[in-house]
Amino acid sequence: MKFLAEIEILPLKGLLDPQGKAVESGLPRIGIEHATNVRVGKFITMELEASSDISAHEMAEKACKSLLANLIMEGYTIRISSI
Amino acid sequence: MKFLAEIEILPLKGLLDPQGKAVESGLPRIGIEHATNVRVGKFITMELEASSDISAHEMAEKACKSLLANLIMEGYTIRISSI
Repeated sequence: MKFLAEIEILPLKGLLDPQGKAVESGLPRIGIEHATNVRVGKFITMELEASSDISAHEMAEKACKSLLANLIMEGYTIRISSI
Repeated sequence: MKFLAEIEILPLKGLLDPQGKAVESGLPRIGIEHATNVRVGKFITMELEASSDISAHEMAEKACKSLLANLIMEGYTIRISSI
């Protein structure tokens, strides 16, 4: 079965996020005054061939831990849907 | 009212995605053989002060169009939830 994995990676709360700060300071210049706590991370999608959604989730988790996310500085969330 | 905007930005389908290709070629090395169509983009969250979820969505859309996404090469999706 084929699954779509959608992975969101964000800097952990409490850590400096210079990209987020840069976006936050740029928003008022385009007329958006009330944006706070802006955080910038990565979004990754992939199609996985797996026997079940649990198995697809395990594969995506392994990809996060070993390749995609830096667990010292980043957290991740995974969504799996069948396609 | 306060809203959380979650913005996913991905390279448009059909365009080259060198980061995605790099991840795709790295996955077999960590034992994930059946991943295809890997795409890498940005994930941005921000808290918005707005009168309604529709107004928060408009602010996030403006941020995407004017600052966050390159519409020639990228598409975006926005999720708004109240916090």
